Amino acid sequence: MEKYKFYERSINYYETDKMSVVHHSNYARFLEECRVDMLRYYEMPLEMFEEKGYVIPVLDLYSEFKESIKFGETVKIVPRIDKVTPVKFFISYMIYDETMTRVKHIAKSSHCFLNADFKPVSLKKVEPELYNRFLSLVEAE
Amino acid sequence: MEKYKFYERSINYYETDKMSVVHHSNYARFLEECRVDMLRYYEMPLEMFEEKGYVIPVLDLYSEFKESIKFGETVKIVPRIDKVTPVKFFISYMIYDETMTRVKHIAKSSHCFLNADFKPVSLKKVEPELYNRFLSLVEAE
Amino acid sequence: MEKYKFYERSINYYETDKMSVVHHSNYARFLEECRVDMLRYYEMPLEMFEEKGYVIPVLDLYSEFKESIKFGETVKIVPRIDKVTPVKFFISYMIYDETMTRVKHIAKSSHCFLNADFKPVSLKKVEPELYNRFLSLVEAE
Amino acid sequence: MEKYKFYERSINYYETDKMSVVHHSNYARFLEECRVDMLRYYEMPLEMFEEKGYVIPVLDLYSEFKESIKFGETVKIVPRIDKVTPVKFFISYMIYDETMTRVKHIAKSSHCFLNADFKPVSLKKVEPELYNRFLSLVEAE
Repeated sequence: MEKYKFYERSINYYETDKMSVVHHSNYARFLEECRVDMLRYYEMPLEMFEEKGYVIPVLDLYSEFKESIKFGETVKIVPRIDKVTPVKFFISYMIYDETMTRVKHIAKSSHCFLNADFKPVSLKKVEPELYNRFLSLVEAE
Repeated sequence: MEKYKFYERSINYYETDKMSVVHHSNYARFLEECRVDMLRYYEMPLEMFEEKGYVIPVLDLYSEFKESIKFGETVKIVPRIDKVTPVKFFISYMIYDETMTRVKHIAKSSHCFLNADFKPVSLKKVEPELYNRFLSLVEAE
Repeated sequence: MEKYKFYERSINYYETDKMSVVHHSNYARFLEECRVDMLRYYEMPLEMFEEKGYVIPVLDLYSEFKESIKFGETVKIVPRIDKVTPVKFFISYMIYDETMTRVKHIAKSSHCFLNADFKPVSLKKVEPELYNRFLSLVEAE
Repeated sequence: MEKYKFYERSINYYETDKMSVVHHSNYARFLEECRVDMLRYYEMPLEMFEEKGYVIPVLDLYSEFKESIKFGETVKIVPRIDKVTPVKFFISYMIYDETMTRVKHIAKSSHCFLNADFKPVSLKKVEPELYNRFLSLVEAE
């Protein structure tokens, strides 16, 4: 399967603030959209995890705001799966302008798998096939 | 019990848009905060409905944007329970500036009660005491 | 020019609330996305109005929540320009499911044109050509 | 002047997602509310910077999600000004439950000062008095 390339989306008016740029809290939303899109591309959609009774919360998130983004602009988000362990996975992201010549934002997030009781589970144990598919997507740095 | 007076809150930076005023989508959130606060005041908190297995969605919402509101301003929202039927209730709202001399926004919402299967229920039948309490709060127009 | 058909978008995880459906405040955002997309299609992008020094706020908004919408679902929004006057315009919207067989939401909004001082202007006077283009888009009910 | 203690706020319904907890993107908003409240307490309100022609964007943000937060819960956010340089400042935050016995979230943010052209300025040069007030608020780690 070919590598997922990027998630593209344009900036909405309601995502700006009175500085006339995207409010910083919206970047976490853009990154989530990108993750959801990437997981769907790799045939592991979030909905499938939910049907199996798992949720995938964010454990931590690091965001570096390099350049502001304006209403009407289009961004391209390139995700990379950095690391997968039985209980966690780590993603990094580059948000580019439409031409992919300027870096707008750099981010990293980590996630775990919780069952219906919000207890951590080992994906390796409960869904070994999914775990292996995830593991195969890790990119060398 | 004394009538609920108003819900007061100040405007956050992230609620502004590039027009430098509160984005219109946030008013529905302010009205929800006001409803939640009012229901708590009247000892019918939303959490109590949820524990009993009911949710209270919005059926319709009418909003009139009279004057824009800016970051740092404080608004006071005066709700009024207009009508209660066995299956629905109707609320109207006035959003004022801090001094309550200017009307910023006028709104009306209607709501119903759904059970855990998202089916409408008659509050009068399933929770007659709560229904009567609700009914006693209706104000003459 | 062919009539604008619909605005399509899928529902994001962050747009759900604890009822597991789209929070009602997000519909105003979907409608705004649709308006922005339609204006761009008709070669009257919001950015063009902004460059000329005008903003286009919402005057009022009526929303009827017919059926809830879930994460991962796709909606199609069909807008219609109902009326254009020198100082205002009126739009109605139908939000459908992806197959366009179910009505999820019905809405109406009205808007005016403000100059840089937030004073209403007559589009007919200040931008007669744009006004006529707008007027030509009105659909008979 | 006594040290700023904490920023208290309760969680709104619209801040939850379908996991029935606060969506992670909202934490950046809570932290902003806390910063704004703290700056006002120290008589350096954000509005004052804006009137002087400066904006204070976020440069980076690190967030660690320790425990989920639910609708109706109240949190207390304790900020600390870690470091102030002529062009930047660094804040860390602890978000606690209402009783301040459980840590819900840990965060760090850094910020700079931009002029009306979005160019970085040295607060020490342009507003030496404000800079000194800021510097006096730094807490030893």
